[in-house]
Amino acid sequence: MSEKGRKPSGSSICSAIEGLWKEVRELSLGTSIEHLQSAPSSLQFLRQFVLPNKPCIISNAIQHWSALSAWTEDEYLCRALADRQVSLHLTPDGRADALVHHPSSPSTLCFASAHVQRMPFPLALQYIVDSSSPSSPFVAYAQEQNDCFRSEYSQLLPDVESHISWASESFGCLPEAVNLWIGNQRSETSFHKDHYENLYAVITGEKHFLLIPPTDVHRMYVREYPAASYNFSQETGKLSLELEKPSRYIPWCSVNPFPSSSTREQQISLFPRYFSGPEPFHCTVKAGEILYLPSMWFHYVRQSPDSRGRTIALNYWYDMRFDIKYAYYNFLQSIDIHSTKACAPKVYESYDGS
Amino acid sequence: MSEKGRKPSGSSICSAIEGLWKEVRELSLGTSIEHLQSAPSSLQFLRQFVLPNKPCIISNAIQHWSALSAWTEDEYLCRALADRQVSLHLTPDGRADALVHHPSSPSTLCFASAHVQRMPFPLALQYIVDSSSPSSPFVAYAQEQNDCFRSEYSQLLPDVESHISWASESFGCLPEAVNLWIGNQRSETSFHKDHYENLYAVITGEKHFLLIPPTDVHRMYVREYPAASYNFSQETGKLSLELEKPSRYIPWCSVNPFPSSSTREQQISLFPRYFSGPEPFHCTVKAGEILYLPSMWFHYVRQSPDSRGRTIALNYWYDMRFDIKYAYYNFLQSIDIHSTKACAPKVYESYDGS
Repeated sequence: MSEKGRKPSGSSICSAIEGLWKEVRELSLGTSIEHLQSAPSSLQFLRQFVLPNKPCIISNAIQHWSALSAWTEDEYLCRALADRQVSLHLTPDGRADALVHHPSSPSTLCFASAHVQRMPFPLALQYIVDSSSPSSPFVAYAQEQNDCFRSEYSQLLPDVESHISWASESFGCLPEAVNLWIGNQRSETSFHKDHYENLYAVITGEKHFLLIPPTDVHRMYVREYPAASYNFSQETGKLSLELEKPSRYIPWCSVNPFPSSSTREQQISLFPRYFSGPEPFHCTVKAGEILYLPSMWFHYVRQSPDSRGRTIALNYWYDMRFDIKYAYYNFLQSIDIHSTKACAPKVYESYDGS
Repeated sequence: MSEKGRKPSGSSICSAIEGLWKEVRELSLGTSIEHLQSAPSSLQFLRQFVLPNKPCIISNAIQHWSALSAWTEDEYLCRALADRQVSLHLTPDGRADALVHHPSSPSTLCFASAHVQRMPFPLALQYIVDSSSPSSPFVAYAQEQNDCFRSEYSQLLPDVESHISWASESFGCLPEAVNLWIGNQRSETSFHKDHYENLYAVITGEKHFLLIPPTDVHRMYVREYPAASYNFSQETGKLSLELEKPSRYIPWCSVNPFPSSSTREQQISLFPRYFSGPEPFHCTVKAGEILYLPSMWFHYVRQSPDSRGRTIALNYWYDMRFDIKYAYYNFLQSIDIHSTKACAPKVYESYDGS
């Protein structure tokens, strides 16, 4: 019947939020992503990772998938998918679903979606590999997040397992969607979060993640940006960005964790809570490994290709639970830190401008 | 990659906190405590109750315990524990670890602990049964929360299981403490929370719980009260309350959910967030049932006796996880709602004073 709770303090909301970032790391997350050397039991996975909303990397859990060797061969993939039409995402620079300056109004940021082109798989793969060259005027990425693996790529189903059995047991359900990602090192995925529990298996190449827990939502500066999309002009042979009409606004994380050297100082002053707060969790997921990316974690992703110039990954989205954690998250993010005097942005003190 | 999060609103902290009380019920808790008709599997228990921090009552999980019949007999208990010294808690009114007015300064509330008297079990049981009469000048309650079942009452170990097997599998550990509670209907336990996962098994009689989720911490008006304890005077034969010296302060919930009719209006105006907020979850745990009382839930407990005038329960405390939920809780409770202008206490509008 002891009462160990801390007594309410008179500290500002802002310092309480900063305390939360620190405490969740000290109590639960630590400083690096835990690495398991084999598949956990469903109980262990649920107790040690899902319940505390804590990522982990798992080795030696998918070594029996024939995909691990078969998908390294372009010939195999092109034969299996010879007559399949797939959706290829095209951008000028590898940044789809990202904030970009609108060409006609460079001071305006918009949320840019890729141009999506349907084409036979062998051609799509050629585009992906060819566009890895910096001289290519566009970057191709096969990444439809609409359960595409079980539709567009269903010929490859026998090469993997249809679900991650211990995870399905933990969650008590089968995956809601399975998505395939084929890209090259020029593609990146900007900071965002998903309302799914995610098991992200890398088949060939490597994926590099920056991970930020949901407690840190105020560090991501989620703001609304006008939606735009790239369109391919048959006339010019180029991609041009066009704002959606009628306008539509998308809430998105404002932070680019790797600003160019010319914009770095400005980015740091615009988003001080990101740059002066705790380091994001960094991890690399290698071919044959799975990342458990818990629901509501912000993630930024880059990739390194295999010797054939591509990275292939498969992710299993399981329904998340909208429980007390989610309610706490919604409460936290509803706090408008900007309108709180005590929360005036701090200048990033250790940045020397060099 | 969708971004379904709500955009930050400019609403006050106070209305955000009230929104949290509502949302956790709508998303996860519902309006009543779920009742299982048999023991869950460890996976199901972990997924459906521990993970979302959600209580449940479980029937038919301990029907094989011989305690269920044996402990209804005073003769059996007195024979098994004939030579055992046990700790009996004595109060004038059944309210131990509760806020009471200090006799010498009636405007001062203090946190009163029982007078603890060691005595042979048969005598203790007699005191418990006899003191159920309103005319008894004291109320006796056997309730040491120091793993007493496995020490003072170890003769009774064979009558129950040493742990709740599916719960131990879920938590990945054995109970940290097992406590026995033998009392009568005059004893009550004031609102408080424990830093343990709790499985509360009723053996005979009934326990009546009011439960409040940890999201509602601001409704409990946790404040610091000076510690006091009852002492038995051999001279007067009475219990007198004495403040601890040197003074020690205990943070405790200020709310009495059942104020007397003469103090009700005052209590409502002092603690409006409790009385005007969502109803507490009510439940009765009958002999042979288990309540899963999740860590950090506030609970208030009363009891109804069996035909022999006593209620016997056994609770298993398992270590809780100090994870992201706990970090969110600490953040929430660190918000000093009293210093926030927007959070001036509301008058309880529907109370008509009758």
